Amino acid sequence: MIDPRGQETLSGSAQSEIFQILRDGKPRTRSELATLTGLARSTVAARVDALLTAGLIQSVAHAASTGGRPSRQFAFDGTRHGVLGVDIGATHAHIGISDLRGELLVDTWESLPVADGPEAVLGWVIEAGTAMVKEHTSDTFLRAIGVGLPGPVEHATGRPVDPPIMPGWDRFDVPGCLTEAFGVPALVDNDVNVMAMGERNEHWPDVDDMLFVKVSTGIGAGLFTGGRVHRGAQGIAGDIGHVFVPGKEDVQCRCGSVGCLEAVAAGPAIAAHLREAGVDVDTPQDVIAAVLGGNIQAVREVREAGRLIGQVLTTAVSLTNPAVIVLGGPIAAAGDHLLAGAREVIYTRSTPLATGSLQIVKTRGGDKAAVAGACSMAIQHALSVDSVEALIRDVAL
Amino acid sequence: MIDPRGQETLSGSAQSEIFQILRDGKPRTRSELATLTGLARSTVAARVDALLTAGLIQSVAHAASTGGRPSRQFAFDGTRHGVLGVDIGATHAHIGISDLRGELLVDTWESLPVADGPEAVLGWVIEAGTAMVKEHTSDTFLRAIGVGLPGPVEHATGRPVDPPIMPGWDRFDVPGCLTEAFGVPALVDNDVNVMAMGERNEHWPDVDDMLFVKVSTGIGAGLFTGGRVHRGAQGIAGDIGHVFVPGKEDVQCRCGSVGCLEAVAAGPAIAAHLREAGVDVDTPQDVIAAVLGGNIQAVREVREAGRLIGQVLTTAVSLTNPAVIVLGGPIAAAGDHLLAGAREVIYTRSTPLATGSLQIVKTRGGDKAAVAGACSMAIQHALSVDSVEALIRDVAL
Repeated sequence: MIDPRGQETLSGSAQSEIFQILRDGKPRTRSELATLTGLARSTVAARVDALLTAGLIQSVAHAASTGGRPSRQFAFDGTRHGVLGVDIGATHAHIGISDLRGELLVDTWESLPVADGPEAVLGWVIEAGTAMVKEHTSDTFLRAIGVGLPGPVEHATGRPVDPPIMPGWDRFDVPGCLTEAFGVPALVDNDVNVMAMGERNEHWPDVDDMLFVKVSTGIGAGLFTGGRVHRGAQGIAGDIGHVFVPGKEDVQCRCGSVGCLEAVAAGPAIAAHLREAGVDVDTPQDVIAAVLGGNIQAVREVREAGRLIGQVLTTAVSLTNPAVIVLGGPIAAAGDHLLAGAREVIYTRSTPLATGSLQIVKTRGGDKAAVAGACSMAIQHALSVDSVEALIRDVAL
Repeated sequence: MIDPRGQETLSGSAQSEIFQILRDGKPRTRSELATLTGLARSTVAARVDALLTAGLIQSVAHAASTGGRPSRQFAFDGTRHGVLGVDIGATHAHIGISDLRGELLVDTWESLPVADGPEAVLGWVIEAGTAMVKEHTSDTFLRAIGVGLPGPVEHATGRPVDPPIMPGWDRFDVPGCLTEAFGVPALVDNDVNVMAMGERNEHWPDVDDMLFVKVSTGIGAGLFTGGRVHRGAQGIAGDIGHVFVPGKEDVQCRCGSVGCLEAVAAGPAIAAHLREAGVDVDTPQDVIAAVLGGNIQAVREVREAGRLIGQVLTTAVSLTNPAVIVLGGPIAAAGDHLLAGAREVIYTRSTPLATGSLQIVKTRGGDKAAVAGACSMAIQHALSVDSVEALIRDVAL
């Protein structure tokens, strides 16, 4: 929270601790805050006033005092500000507004191919988002935007980088475009990291080491190490869809390489295998319908895809020793077959110490997992030290 | 540094910031420290006195003042305290003392099989370590011990867990034993993590995402994510020696499984392949001598081992997107052949975005890399908030 090397010019670093303490929701008096932080009482009083004015804390009750008049208590107020979450998929866009507690207030959905390009897709996001913000919130409500994109994103700039299924988006300034339209910072990450954040914050908040794997038209992973999304040197950690699967040299991948995991185990590959076996399927949705309908070939193919994914994940398990692996995306959500295949291989092939207490489960997030994850990412930013400082400065002006 | 949820009972959390600021070595006045932390001047003055008494900072010079008498400046003093580093290998033990700046003051080495058990090995460490501490340091010098063991270590307890080459060590309380003997905290980790820490702190201090791979009698990795060793849920992250290598089902591993990476690519496997080819080698040291002597079979086998290791590392590259991969251990250090094999596969098989700026290099640490790494781990602990608080309390009593 406080980087001693980076704060030489900031005199308020310790002050920002007050809000970070109050974020847990527990009410405290000014006197308690002074004791907890070691800050002078006058500093605490001024800071509490600034946070009240900014609408980040509220006066909640009066604590019984040892004599004299009772002391006021203050606690986090997550209802006065919020964020816009944006989930852009291969063929849809989905936006929603949540408050700073993560409560989704409203959302809307549009069938919209990402291949239409950034002007068309972000144009809809800006139009629908602006209308939604105007109708459902106050002028000062919005603090940040979170966006998930279906391709690799350079973390430092928030720009998509060589995204295979997003023609026209390469290095497009998504954060700049949305920040200009909405006047607040926009955080952009790939859709898998965004879903992983939503899944973890909602269902596994105490798990520090987790691997989320999305199986859809592609395959990607979100890796948590020490409670944070691990992005890696270029921000593309988790991009396991193009790991080479030995023995599959004859399978061509859309990326130009051969034997990639997603070319043999993602939705379109499963559909192709089923067509070869004479089952009438076209899209991943058809595969899901066949699985849920009990088609034995479909079940077998999904389980085999689970085994191939499990084969790649055994290396991930040995390398990162997660406590939980969550399989997400529509193929994972349909029955337990993908899960069963992955479990079979991971539990057999990994070292007993790594699998002894390893949980391998399927996603609990539903249709709104991606948009909720995007909100979650934006909230994290909105509650950071820098954002809180910016809000306090804005209000003071 | 300050966890708002965990510090409810500690009133000194913000005070500990003063020492953490001074750790960068830059001298500062009391007045500058008050500005940087927001703490009351009286709090700063008391804290500076406590740190001086504890021997963690020193008064270094007098800053020119704007009038009146010049102000004293204070800076980190890393010479008055230090740590003991312990590197236990399959057939040796190596100990050394360094000060808190990481300067190795003295070290000694003993040929000692780890299979002799903890009493024998730790007995030597205690005897030789006590003599060394007594001869080379003052009574109050030692602040922590760092230990690297050649097997998996449970991070929370520092105990070896089912270590394959360490009979008699399973769940032995290594930290408890050394803490009782030396009266300071002992940190225990596996030797690969310990070497990885030494390598990074010494040569790649600004690299946050790094993978260190040790190739010796076994194969293991130390993974840095966000600048820290990633240990995983059971503390066994990096244990890649038993990842299954497809196509090698016929090779039996000492772990009871088949096709494990270290059964096909570590020192003993390379030696076995060479013997089959009629080259007279026994130990990994013989392999190294053959490679350095230019034996064409030996060079070929080491390069092939590099390719197999590279094959497993392609998954690691896609999953974690490191900036640097360092190949360490004696086999990697002998020539560039292991490196060449690994590079060949990783640069060909991983996605271009992940390899575009990926450096794959061999270790720069020499014979003392492991003991220096153990010291480095102990120093990190000795300079942590909790250790500094403990030292200040000890001195005040």
